[in-house]
Amino acid sequence: MAEASNPDSTVCKVALLGLGTVGTSVARMLCERNDAHLQLSHVLNRNIASKKVDWLPASVQRTEKIDDILSSDADIVVEVMGGLQPSEGWVRRALQSGKSVVTANKQLIARCGSELTSLASEMKQQIQFGASVAGGVPVISGLQDGLAGDELFKIRGILNGTCNYILSQIENTGIPFAGALKEAQKLGFAEADPTEDIDGLDARAKLAILARVGLHCSVSPDNIVARTISAIDSVDFEYANQLGCTIRQISWAELKKTELKAGEGDTLFAAVQPALVELSSPLARVEGSQNLVVATGKYGGETVFGGHGAGGNPTAVAVVSDILAIVRSKTDRSKQCAVTAAGQPAVMTPTVATDINTKHYLRFLVKDRPGIIASLATILSHYHINIDAVVQKPDCEKSHLPFLITLEECNSALVEQALQQINALDFQVQPCLHLPIL
Amino acid sequence: MAEASNPDSTVCKVALLGLGTVGTSVARMLCERNDAHLQLSHVLNRNIASKKVDWLPASVQRTEKIDDILSSDADIVVEVMGGLQPSEGWVRRALQSGKSVVTANKQLIARCGSELTSLASEMKQQIQFGASVAGGVPVISGLQDGLAGDELFKIRGILNGTCNYILSQIENTGIPFAGALKEAQKLGFAEADPTEDIDGLDARAKLAILARVGLHCSVSPDNIVARTISAIDSVDFEYANQLGCTIRQISWAELKKTELKAGEGDTLFAAVQPALVELSSPLARVEGSQNLVVATGKYGGETVFGGHGAGGNPTAVAVVSDILAIVRSKTDRSKQCAVTAAGQPAVMTPTVATDINTKHYLRFLVKDRPGIIASLATILSHYHINIDAVVQKPDCEKSHLPFLITLEECNSALVEQALQQINALDFQVQPCLHLPIL
Repeated sequence: MAEASNPDSTVCKVALLGLGTVGTSVARMLCERNDAHLQLSHVLNRNIASKKVDWLPASVQRTEKIDDILSSDADIVVEVMGGLQPSEGWVRRALQSGKSVVTANKQLIARCGSELTSLASEMKQQIQFGASVAGGVPVISGLQDGLAGDELFKIRGILNGTCNYILSQIENTGIPFAGALKEAQKLGFAEADPTEDIDGLDARAKLAILARVGLHCSVSPDNIVARTISAIDSVDFEYANQLGCTIRQISWAELKKTELKAGEGDTLFAAVQPALVELSSPLARVEGSQNLVVATGKYGGETVFGGHGAGGNPTAVAVVSDILAIVRSKTDRSKQCAVTAAGQPAVMTPTVATDINTKHYLRFLVKDRPGIIASLATILSHYHINIDAVVQKPDCEKSHLPFLITLEECNSALVEQALQQINALDFQVQPCLHLPIL
Repeated sequence: MAEASNPDSTVCKVALLGLGTVGTSVARMLCERNDAHLQLSHVLNRNIASKKVDWLPASVQRTEKIDDILSSDADIVVEVMGGLQPSEGWVRRALQSGKSVVTANKQLIARCGSELTSLASEMKQQIQFGASVAGGVPVISGLQDGLAGDELFKIRGILNGTCNYILSQIENTGIPFAGALKEAQKLGFAEADPTEDIDGLDARAKLAILARVGLHCSVSPDNIVARTISAIDSVDFEYANQLGCTIRQISWAELKKTELKAGEGDTLFAAVQPALVELSSPLARVEGSQNLVVATGKYGGETVFGGHGAGGNPTAVAVVSDILAIVRSKTDRSKQCAVTAAGQPAVMTPTVATDINTKHYLRFLVKDRPGIIASLATILSHYHINIDAVVQKPDCEKSHLPFLITLEECNSALVEQALQQINALDFQVQPCLHLPIL
């Protein structure tokens, strides 16, 4: 915990800078967790007095002044304000005050991540930034820890939901770029000034972070090529389709090793641009505001991370996961032998159910005769099971006739009971195959 | 580092139990890393004397006796032998000897994970098992750390490559199950006795581990329903397709919260079975021996982890990543302020390239007249760029004619040079759109 300030070293206190969409989600999640080891202690926001925050516990101190936070006993400062000013100075001062930092700020980390990490180390604190790329998708920890054993050399991803939404709309409806952008703005998926997204400036900050974490390459966002998607027309999707492809805004960093010793003379290709992607690639199937990253390594080949790239709650998941990682590492150091460590929920032993409510697929193989469907339907209706469809392939042998009954959502145990009775019927060549439909 | 044994606390010594496919990959990767903080110190294998291991450094001690390892100064014991005996006893004794453990053993962790984790905690050591599920896909750390902030309630995955290969073969070629199995056996994708895979016993051990790590539920593999895929016929894929689905072996764990307080009265549905999956689902697109896990949380929605689920190198990536996590946490405790911590490669500043070799998509919008293709082809050939195809949509206006030229793989900077010349030609209505084809 913070060097001298927090007297109760079993509780980790969290100060939140910013109470916008992400900040509000973080605050709610921390309060809902009800974790004895973790406490939201401070919230800083402009005009905090006039904000409707009745749901915040009375114990949470509210302030507009960063000095109140810096001089407090908070152990972790969470920065979710965005932008470089005043975030950069505040994060720096938080670290200098002996507090660890969690931030969701891509521009800050893309530009000062290296320096802030060094500062944190010097102060024997941590800075975590899992939410700065791809929202709730744990790609930072995945590259940094999960794939630490590999030698990654290529990262390709879809890191901007706005571009992905606009390109999907052009593809699906054939409207021109300008119309798709207007629609995205109306729905709140694009900003009034969409330059950052459309021209790849948002994604290249994220790519700079991924290059650092996954490829161990320091690259300034300004040195990453960024090409706009505004030149893409619906005719390009027609042509792309003829080539078995679609078009997506792809963030792409690739390390070319030279024969010289590692680190010397290596070249990094880094660009954010619209590109043709084969329809069979996972990158081609990213819908709406989803994000996806494909990391390629010397030993492990391609590994895929995908999920919600934006939104208050998904981004807050990444922030809270980072907070918990800091709590764990602090606890590990001071109190290594705790069986249920802080930040890790207890394991429970639930009742194990073998039944579940789902739609069902029943495939029969029968010796055909009149009345089969009638007998099956009678038994199923006896169990109050509703038939959704009956499907039969044409031109099958009467003595080995496969046909299909799908059932509306119902309990699988009930279906098993009905099948016991059904499987005793004499027209069956083999027992009915019963599969859930997900 | 290990309590009293290893005198040089800046080097972490690793003892490897087992030198099969995974063990060999782990040994090679550790040697190739050339990490001053990490050293392969011991290898245990039956008949180690007769094994061809000339590539192992002379400094690595070879033995057949576990006692040699337990009494050594190794800090971390890596168990990649598989099976419950003698692995279970050896892992237990390693922890009791004050060594941390990394294991790839799914049966061991599914059955004794909880107990071994407690034992590790008691001994102030760690046990990591990232390689026990989904090979190189970092799903254990993803659920445990990356998504720690969420409340996960559902995990669905494809965890067995053998079943996935067999089902894909039935789907793609229409051969019956028995034929697909025989083929998989011939190609080494299925064991001589395929029961463990086909009947879901392999996958349910993995599901028990995921349920513990992601849903915080302790469940014995024996209590997880497992249904064979051997009843699936090619006709089922025809019917599934009519429903917009395919069939995959799905491992599925889902927590049903009751209104009672958490942990009391909760029910876990857990099953490994063939199921119909919508073609639009990421689960439907898993090919061959790939693995994929979809975790669903209250806050973050669906998050996807995918990649190579088996094989020496991918599995070894998970093992080495676990070793590095232990090294990091040990170093963090003793020497928190190191800027370049052990187990973390230094960040380099490479040359940033803006050009890359790839295929290219050039879409023109021209005022049509004879000789356009000829002029373009002349300029491209001047730069030694080969045209792959020329495609033109029918029925377009002559005054705004879009057409496409694709180029064989060549350098993007060269293409940009050619385009500067091309964009000056008078028949162009707008500059050519140039996209890479991934």
